[in-house]
Amino acid sequence: MPQISERGTLMPASPIRKLAPLAYAAEERGIKVYRLNIGQPDLPTPQAALDAIRNIDRQVLEYSPSQGYRSYREKLVNYYAKYNIFVTADDIIVTTGGSEAVLFAFLACLNPGDEIIVPEPAYANYMAFAISAGAIIRTVTTTIDEGFCLPKVEKFEELINERTKAILICNPNNPTGYLYTRKEMNRIRDLVKKYDLYLFSDEVYREFIYTGSPYISACHLEGIENNVVLIDSVSKRYSECGIRIGALITKNEAVRQAVMKFCQARLSPPLIGQIAAEASLDAGEEYERENYDEYVERRKCLIDGLNRIPGVYSPIPMGAFYTVAKLPVDDAEKFCAWCLKDFNYEGETVMMAPASGFYTTPELGKNEVRMAYVLKKEDLQRALFVLGKALEAYPGRVE
Amino acid sequence: MPQISERGTLMPASPIRKLAPLAYAAEERGIKVYRLNIGQPDLPTPQAALDAIRNIDRQVLEYSPSQGYRSYREKLVNYYAKYNIFVTADDIIVTTGGSEAVLFAFLACLNPGDEIIVPEPAYANYMAFAISAGAIIRTVTTTIDEGFCLPKVEKFEELINERTKAILICNPNNPTGYLYTRKEMNRIRDLVKKYDLYLFSDEVYREFIYTGSPYISACHLEGIENNVVLIDSVSKRYSECGIRIGALITKNEAVRQAVMKFCQARLSPPLIGQIAAEASLDAGEEYERENYDEYVERRKCLIDGLNRIPGVYSPIPMGAFYTVAKLPVDDAEKFCAWCLKDFNYEGETVMMAPASGFYTTPELGKNEVRMAYVLKKEDLQRALFVLGKALEAYPGRVE
Repeated sequence: MPQISERGTLMPASPIRKLAPLAYAAEERGIKVYRLNIGQPDLPTPQAALDAIRNIDRQVLEYSPSQGYRSYREKLVNYYAKYNIFVTADDIIVTTGGSEAVLFAFLACLNPGDEIIVPEPAYANYMAFAISAGAIIRTVTTTIDEGFCLPKVEKFEELINERTKAILICNPNNPTGYLYTRKEMNRIRDLVKKYDLYLFSDEVYREFIYTGSPYISACHLEGIENNVVLIDSVSKRYSECGIRIGALITKNEAVRQAVMKFCQARLSPPLIGQIAAEASLDAGEEYERENYDEYVERRKCLIDGLNRIPGVYSPIPMGAFYTVAKLPVDDAEKFCAWCLKDFNYEGETVMMAPASGFYTTPELGKNEVRMAYVLKKEDLQRALFVLGKALEAYPGRVE
Repeated sequence: MPQISERGTLMPASPIRKLAPLAYAAEERGIKVYRLNIGQPDLPTPQAALDAIRNIDRQVLEYSPSQGYRSYREKLVNYYAKYNIFVTADDIIVTTGGSEAVLFAFLACLNPGDEIIVPEPAYANYMAFAISAGAIIRTVTTTIDEGFCLPKVEKFEELINERTKAILICNPNNPTGYLYTRKEMNRIRDLVKKYDLYLFSDEVYREFIYTGSPYISACHLEGIENNVVLIDSVSKRYSECGIRIGALITKNEAVRQAVMKFCQARLSPPLIGQIAAEASLDAGEEYERENYDEYVERRKCLIDGLNRIPGVYSPIPMGAFYTVAKLPVDDAEKFCAWCLKDFNYEGETVMMAPASGFYTTPELGKNEVRMAYVLKKEDLQRALFVLGKALEAYPGRVE
């Protein structure tokens, strides 16, 4: 029997999804599981998108252009302009989710063995896409005690060598909810310029910024226009993760041409997803405001609630809909599994993502979890109550 | 400005899509272009699929499971059983088109530098996915003069070395329309067994077999169950290329587990596409028969018509909806470009895919083109007439 590949062995199991079997088993035992582990918004997809799908009047569901429909890309130009991101339809390549945009950016820009510097904790699938492309993720550590702010420039420079080809950021950040300040973005810009690196910037959470702080896109940084590759997705902002529509945007024509070859090989992004995504751009301000207000309340509910549980600490996330919280436990991975396997309070329990899966440095995040506030406030409140009870009962509790 | 990657440079431009700008330009000049270049069926998508999309009653278009919906996989089990392919729902992984199934098979099974033996001419994107995965395609040549039958075992063995990890076949074949006989499939089985190779078998055209010959799936071959990875797609059989739903099927549990890690990284296959694909399984026999009968007629129309044009030769394809034909021209790539740029007959011209892009051996296929019979018969007839006129007028004609 032939062997699987080394990268097949190296690929990490998803920290978000690997506890899923335990959750299903708990549900089969009749236990209600509050799923705080995954960034799957529960808010409705825009009516305009659902209507566009229901009113589809095609007889043949044919291939779309490899770059994505021009009509959609042209409408996106206006969307980005609202955020002072000025691009043309030609700068935009529609991808199968933000996931494909990350993978194609790596494939087109990096050689096997090339290194990408990423602040950790980081979205775990960056690692998976790096392994797919043979690239290596090096991490600069951000800490809960410093609110996950960007490490000093020296920390980056310690890692930079001749194989370093890129910096990758997620802003607002998944998993920490951190939003980079103008000062921090300028420091990244200077590094990118000084070492002539790519800057891959995942900004899928730009709609979710809760402080008065400005959103500084990588596309706002002057002098590195040809270094920036923007990663985007409609999944989170329109609550339509299932349609698999993202985008890769860059002013760098050589990168676009290379990415397009990977796009042509996979033929086209999903047709119906593009129809839904294009219609979503007409969702309207009311939809956006309602969703926004809802997340503002949920954030307050979750963070206040967490910090009221003895021994628990969460910084106040500025954006996205996640937080990384510290728990008074010996090992968050054990605790999360225990919650699903061995615990319930009045028939209920909580599912969280152990944070260690978001760090590459061993032992980091061992007493941290990532939680997404994508549940209704009442459910969040109940989940917090159940979490408090779980922490009281957990045999591996530490003070 | 940072450089693009070596694989970004190596990636071939799609032989099917690279003439597209010339075709658009011709159309802008008011010329009607008969597109024989791409395997985009014009037949309607099953009504059941369109209805399922129109009747979607979800409020949130959420992520689906990384492996694909169980309900869909369970229905697929019955579909495959009709072809004497006996698998369980757990053996099936739903992918984003057949394209993703090929890429994930390569990523999960092959290390960079590993070699795959493929009969050429071959579907050009295999090369693209191999480059993406750092694997190397080695080809055994099949020839139009021998009707593209499988080369002798010795031709394979000449290429086999310690880096050889897989054989890849497409059956019925794109681009040649060839259908492997039982004898040929047994020869492949013996090679796979003797050298413990993977057998990647792309069988997306199994509905399109026009001779009485039996369809021998790689899954029918005994003793290599753990070596076979079946690649599939609903694109062609239900005329729904745009929904991007395929499948990777294998009895090899280690391969499935490795593939699933790549699946988890990209989160999920398209939600609405799965709904359409699942509904398509209820398309009914009438839909299948009507489509089949239509292709039978088109095939006859195209092949008879081609062989009536002086200097043109096409073997009779047994399956799929392509043929590779020999033309009396100096260079098919030049001729195809010339048809779009410099020629029209009464305001009409033809677009074909130069066959050289389907070979890796230089100089092969230089006077061959791939044509897809995915147009109505009247259009095919007209396209053949225009092609005849073009060949008369082409300055690079050779006898």
